[in-house]
Amino acid sequence: MADERTLASLLAANERFYRTFESLDYPALAALWEDSERVFCVHPGWAPLRGTRAVLESWQRIIENTAEMRFELSDSHGVLAGDVGIVTVFEGIQSAVGHERHSSGVISTNLFAFDAAAGQWMLFHHHAAHTAIPEDPEAGPLLV
Amino acid sequence: MADERTLASLLAANERFYRTFESLDYPALAALWEDSERVFCVHPGWAPLRGTRAVLESWQRIIENTAEMRFELSDSHGVLAGDVGIVTVFEGIQSAVGHERHSSGVISTNLFAFDAAAGQWMLFHHHAAHTAIPEDPEAGPLLV
Repeated sequence: MADERTLASLLAANERFYRTFESLDYPALAALWEDSERVFCVHPGWAPLRGTRAVLESWQRIIENTAEMRFELSDSHGVLAGDVGIVTVFEGIQSAVGHERHSSGVISTNLFAFDAAAGQWMLFHHHAAHTAIPEDPEAGPLLV
Repeated sequence: MADERTLASLLAANERFYRTFESLDYPALAALWEDSERVFCVHPGWAPLRGTRAVLESWQRIIENTAEMRFELSDSHGVLAGDVGIVTVFEGIQSAVGHERHSSGVISTNLFAFDAAAGQWMLFHHHAAHTAIPEDPEAGPLLV
């Protein structure tokens, strides 16, 4: 079913991105990304990756090395700006890599472009960074 | 002189943001920001701030507490998407807070909106995060 270009469908596309990541289904995750040179991705603490190929390779590698991944999303905000949708979201992450379990807090900027022909928001920019908890804006710098 | 809505003027607006920050001139820095509820800012390691007032207060506080700030910018990429301009940039930062000197590497996503009446790109989204150096995309996670 095709989406409309609305704030609700934008936030639903953002939610779908995280639920698909949790499913550890690489082809499904790859299908959410735009195929273009402007595709950009920063995983928390990684150097930036550019272009669909490099970005999707990183996701494939992450999925191959992840046993379990759970996101508790909060503080989601969406902004419509023409054909671009901007979402900022706090990710409370629980993950398992091999036998090690990790817990972390990340704030992400996700940019989507509305593909009118497909009736779908396509992800083209994911910038994820470790952060203080969103409820504590006076916490100040963690990592200076 | 009014800007055109081009990639060159977008990258110039991004450069102006950092040079103005270096000048530690708060009113000049504040004048580069859009006045809207969608204004969003993450300083490296901080919790996100939303809305022009909260964001500008943070900049005023940072400028008041900074003796010197120098940016070596590299790996700048600009994308035009309608009235929105997206810039990603690596910031090599040298700063002095009191008598302490800091050095760090940050990757930022900066979003600008073209104000046709003013003929100017206005900043409305700055997401800055510590990162590995941009020349080493295989470095993997720093902070997991």
